[in-house]
Amino acid sequence: MKKLINDPRAVVDESVQGFGLAHADLVSVSADPLFVFRREPARQGKVGLVSGGGSGHEPLHAGYVGLGMLDAAVPGAVFTSPTPDQILPATLAASTGAGVVHIVKNYTGDVLNFETAAELAQAEGVEVRQVLVNDDVAVEDSLYTAGRRGVGGTVLIEKIAGAAAERGDDLDAVAAIAQRVNDSVRTMGVALAACTVPHAGVPSFELAEDEIEIGVGIHGEPGRHRIAMESADGITDRLLQPILTELDLAAGAQVLLFVNGMGGTPLSELYIVYRRAAQVLAEAGAQVARSLVGNYITALEMQGCSISVLRLDADMVELWDAPVHTPALRWGV
Amino acid sequence: MKKLINDPRAVVDESVQGFGLAHADLVSVSADPLFVFRREPARQGKVGLVSGGGSGHEPLHAGYVGLGMLDAAVPGAVFTSPTPDQILPATLAASTGAGVVHIVKNYTGDVLNFETAAELAQAEGVEVRQVLVNDDVAVEDSLYTAGRRGVGGTVLIEKIAGAAAERGDDLDAVAAIAQRVNDSVRTMGVALAACTVPHAGVPSFELAEDEIEIGVGIHGEPGRHRIAMESADGITDRLLQPILTELDLAAGAQVLLFVNGMGGTPLSELYIVYRRAAQVLAEAGAQVARSLVGNYITALEMQGCSISVLRLDADMVELWDAPVHTPALRWGV
Repeated sequence: MKKLINDPRAVVDESVQGFGLAHADLVSVSADPLFVFRREPARQGKVGLVSGGGSGHEPLHAGYVGLGMLDAAVPGAVFTSPTPDQILPATLAASTGAGVVHIVKNYTGDVLNFETAAELAQAEGVEVRQVLVNDDVAVEDSLYTAGRRGVGGTVLIEKIAGAAAERGDDLDAVAAIAQRVNDSVRTMGVALAACTVPHAGVPSFELAEDEIEIGVGIHGEPGRHRIAMESADGITDRLLQPILTELDLAAGAQVLLFVNGMGGTPLSELYIVYRRAAQVLAEAGAQVARSLVGNYITALEMQGCSISVLRLDADMVELWDAPVHTPALRWGV
Repeated sequence: MKKLINDPRAVVDESVQGFGLAHADLVSVSADPLFVFRREPARQGKVGLVSGGGSGHEPLHAGYVGLGMLDAAVPGAVFTSPTPDQILPATLAASTGAGVVHIVKNYTGDVLNFETAAELAQAEGVEVRQVLVNDDVAVEDSLYTAGRRGVGGTVLIEKIAGAAAERGDDLDAVAAIAQRVNDSVRTMGVALAACTVPHAGVPSFELAEDEIEIGVGIHGEPGRHRIAMESADGITDRLLQPILTELDLAAGAQVLLFVNGMGGTPLSELYIVYRRAAQVLAEAGAQVARSLVGNYITALEMQGCSISVLRLDADMVELWDAPVHTPALRWGV
């Protein structure tokens, strides 16, 4: 294992410290318990938005703390849920009296720990709504999940719900739009090569030189099947087909197309995938109205990508386009 | 070799096609000869800014086409200079009558082909200034270079010179600020693992499991020496020391600290490097006034990073902060 790290046990703390230094204009870091929150508190009466989960998916989630997106993010150990004693103070920091929405990727540990923290926050007078992200069409249950996994759609939900909160939507409305985005987005990923968790020191799975994993999860957990390496176009078709089957887009439907890198794949390859995905969507009669291409929810240095398609409505487009100012996503400001 | 590509010979064309589709609001693509230019022409009288070079360094350069940065970018084959017949029409497309600055990384083929194109453009009445980027402190000459290589500083030069052009600076002034940034920035990189050029099909060099290349170039060309793997802090110190020796910062000097990923290294590791670099700069009495962390000039899926330090002056800070709206860098708009 060769990584730009010091002590494997200090990876998350040191990385978040560096993140806090690099983005001190936007975020503050609580070192113990570890969480990241907006440097400038949101205005009173704004619904708070908190997310979190295992580290190793950077820039998710801390990279999305700031105006128009998250109020706080809670990084766990690598690929390990954060604990309620981190999530609770992050929730309290995000609260301005209008309630807090927890955006939680559907992994057993995350769900449990966010629920516990929500109960504790409610005992302190903060109303909390939990929205589960489960956009992965690859598998129904998995190594770490009952039901579907939360993957690429998380980024879109955090952006759109964050804009709704910034606009002044109330707690129920912010939770509702987050839920609507989740219900309208589907994702599927592929791995060409595994990643290595620092404290494990060996790759989390093995793929032969000519083998890829279709439907892989963002922790390298198994997907649908392993197949021999194919062309980018062939792989793109395999990822898109189940997404399109599920979304059942009407002719002329507007969509957001999100091609996400897993961390170790060059941007140039993501654009080759985007090219084919845009062709397939056009052939299916959909209109790609918005796009996102890059490394936004990763699995350390895993090689591969995921494709997400979000069926847009007018409100989602307005909220997607609204200003956002975070370390990893910024426009309009 | 496992890559998300179709035909290795079509990698650049297909990737740029996808890029053009994903960012059709910002850029247009000329397919043959291949170059990328702003969708909305710059206002008449603005100095044009053109860059280019071998592909494989994405988002450089096409990702920086747009308001406040480049007017056109010219992608060559992977790690191969673009040709004058691409650079000439890109230069003409970028011209509004006030002259054009070519930002050229100091590689023999790039320098030659941009010079040839500049002569052809001048024969058509477009005045051209060439600014060479040679910020790499690692080696004096290299496999592809007489003199120092152009690496991470290129991104900073394109941003700052682009803002100067947008502000209305004339041809000499834009060339001068580009030159001043080049003279004030130093960079050094490290590779933990090599990359594979698609049409070659095998890694461009080999590193043993416990070996890293200090001072590597952005094509995997050799650097200063190979050493046994070290801690992130140790590597950071090795990269920074020659930079600081050369920059000879005065106490209280303001700097921009840029930690750049080579393409295959997780963002979390870049922040660990940033953390140490910020510590060392503080100990050296410098003030980190601006920061950039991420994959901005890459070498396909190479694992590793580079550190750039730019000694700032007040004008550079103003130009750095000025609005930019490109596919890969955006703020203030």
